[in-house]
Amino acid sequence: MSDAISPLATPFPALPAIAGVTPRVARAGYKDWGRCDLTYVELMEGTAVAGVFTKNVCCSSEVDLGRQNARLGKARALVVNAGNSNAFTGYRGREAVEAIMAQVAGSLGCAKEEVFVCSTGVIGVPLPKDKARAGIEAALVAEPCGWEEAARTIGTTDTFAKGATATAMIGGTKVTFSAIIKGSGMIAPDMATMLGYVFTDAAVSPAFLQESLSTANLRTFSCITVDSDTSTSDTVLAFATGQAGNALLVDANSPGADAFAAALHDICRQLAHLVVKDGEGAQKFIAVSVSGAVSDESARRIGLAIANSPLVKTAIAGEDANWGRVVMAVGKAGEPADRDRLSIGFGGTWAARDGQPLADYDEAPVAAHLKGREISIEVDIGLGDGRATVWTCDLTHGYISINADYRS
Amino acid sequence: MSDAISPLATPFPALPAIAGVTPRVARAGYKDWGRCDLTYVELMEGTAVAGVFTKNVCCSSEVDLGRQNARLGKARALVVNAGNSNAFTGYRGREAVEAIMAQVAGSLGCAKEEVFVCSTGVIGVPLPKDKARAGIEAALVAEPCGWEEAARTIGTTDTFAKGATATAMIGGTKVTFSAIIKGSGMIAPDMATMLGYVFTDAAVSPAFLQESLSTANLRTFSCITVDSDTSTSDTVLAFATGQAGNALLVDANSPGADAFAAALHDICRQLAHLVVKDGEGAQKFIAVSVSGAVSDESARRIGLAIANSPLVKTAIAGEDANWGRVVMAVGKAGEPADRDRLSIGFGGTWAARDGQPLADYDEAPVAAHLKGREISIEVDIGLGDGRATVWTCDLTHGYISINADYRS
Repeated sequence: MSDAISPLATPFPALPAIAGVTPRVARAGYKDWGRCDLTYVELMEGTAVAGVFTKNVCCSSEVDLGRQNARLGKARALVVNAGNSNAFTGYRGREAVEAIMAQVAGSLGCAKEEVFVCSTGVIGVPLPKDKARAGIEAALVAEPCGWEEAARTIGTTDTFAKGATATAMIGGTKVTFSAIIKGSGMIAPDMATMLGYVFTDAAVSPAFLQESLSTANLRTFSCITVDSDTSTSDTVLAFATGQAGNALLVDANSPGADAFAAALHDICRQLAHLVVKDGEGAQKFIAVSVSGAVSDESARRIGLAIANSPLVKTAIAGEDANWGRVVMAVGKAGEPADRDRLSIGFGGTWAARDGQPLADYDEAPVAAHLKGREISIEVDIGLGDGRATVWTCDLTHGYISINADYRS
Repeated sequence: MSDAISPLATPFPALPAIAGVTPRVARAGYKDWGRCDLTYVELMEGTAVAGVFTKNVCCSSEVDLGRQNARLGKARALVVNAGNSNAFTGYRGREAVEAIMAQVAGSLGCAKEEVFVCSTGVIGVPLPKDKARAGIEAALVAEPCGWEEAARTIGTTDTFAKGATATAMIGGTKVTFSAIIKGSGMIAPDMATMLGYVFTDAAVSPAFLQESLSTANLRTFSCITVDSDTSTSDTVLAFATGQAGNALLVDANSPGADAFAAALHDICRQLAHLVVKDGEGAQKFIAVSVSGAVSDESARRIGLAIANSPLVKTAIAGEDANWGRVVMAVGKAGEPADRDRLSIGFGGTWAARDGQPLADYDEAPVAAHLKGREISIEVDIGLGDGRATVWTCDLTHGYISINADYRS
């Protein structure tokens, strides 16, 4: 964890324990640091799993194997290595992951496909098998730890520990979610890696867990950006132990399925926002809301074009209501738009409507809004009903310092 | 023009006059500055014209009208306004452009479709018609000026004046090109990414001039990026007066057509490089050469993903041979790639081959290379014969200062 805490940081919330989930941490010593860097979460038998993974085609072996095994739907353990992403390490990297899976499977007496491994940190260095083995041996006999300690242990360049919780009522039964996440963009020579884990005691089929997670992902993790760079290791896994005692959620038609999906969506949104709030160099949290696009997906793409624009992000850093840069970003998105129907606002005040600056535009409330920590940009395309909100942070000297003033 | 000159700046070259081309400058006072900001270039009767324009769908009226009129193939004058882009100004903006076209056409006794207008500067403020009218009146009676003065006058945030020249032999006749360009931010390769003007005395049909310019554009202006942001005003126009006395180049089969196209390509490449060398905050000029892609276009897209990656650009700023970030950028390009066939080098030294770091990688020559001003990144995808080179600059504190510390 870095020393300089993000000005957008929030305190770690009180996360409930989840029946059937036991986190532990240990020191594998992947880097020369005096901190725990291996997280081991044991999951009771019968735990369902679902996952969403990076689309980067140069992804790590962890991602390849995790994607493949999540389809089988069963999980008994999660191992997260911090300090070494094991990406771009060829067959040696893959062997290291398979060794961890075999070691844990041997200890638990489960199939190795039920052991999920994620790694985050330096790339191009095969994960040292001996350190991993010793770290896991230590974790297996360690005392269980709290969520905050686990959240700190999966972190690398994160400046604060990130967790979220949610609940839902399924029939008369309350189900609980606790989740942790790491990611802040990246620091050299590591890849920008977002690793997120959601644990719930709900009883849910792997298929519906996957469907709910994939749907939530589209509107949460797929709607955030710090620097437009896509990690080789990004992974979000959801685990459901079934210990709450609710009637099994089989599919979207099961009673309570909507409440479950809504709670999962809520916790994913919380996690996604926390990653943006720890964006490298971030001083402001920016929500870009696009309406009037030809479809929701078109709105999302336009939103991301705005949220990824260095000129928009530096304007917000400078507290400058530079709506011309927003126009430019809409225009470069490659989506249907009509210059003469476009409207742009900040913090609820329109600066331009229907392709022209407003004659009576009052910049005072906009200027006041832009001085705050939480900024909103509103864009109406004027063509249809498509809408989306995406989230990002501003682009500051801090980002350059973190990423350029470093030597590998 | 800015005070702090780019460290990558080159002296303005000696550009020959082009028969039939008469540049003049004047003060329209579009901003409160004590400099010329209106460039007027008179072209003799019979001048052919071709153009390439931004694909930004929120483009200015200047771009709409220029694109439309360039198809007619004839030009008598060029007017460039600096300090106001007239973009996103609705019908009032369009009226301002049409007024300039009518005024110049009236003075020259030509069709208004033969008058090309470009504007660059702040977005969202209609170009003041009275200032434009007075500026053109002054320009019409001004003494002709040199190319360097014209290059300075079209500039806005540019830190140095940019020009280039080339010649070609067509049959026994020498034809000459002189060109000027402006641009240093909002530069991304969605076609012509800035304002550039090429003047030649060659006799060439509008159709072949357009064909040659479009072809050159693909490998020059479409292969540069500063910040991935695509301007609403980008335009490159080529004018050919036909005064050299060569036999008319009708199409690609005309004797000398190849030499003409090669010279035009050469001057476009020079101009494109100059824009990158004046990239906002640029300290290093970066060439990204991609080979082994499935096609040339795929190679270009992969090259642009690398050249647009903030993490790659900050790594170069930090003189850090961070090939892991290059792997990441290849993987996010959305083009065919195989992690285990990928090779990456800097300045001619491979750091990784076939998906793994080289065991005997010698970082010393790479470290020395990265300390220079001109950096090369080599990427071999290992799948096919597609190749492309794209050019960009590093991402530095200077970029943030220019764009965040600015108020519209």
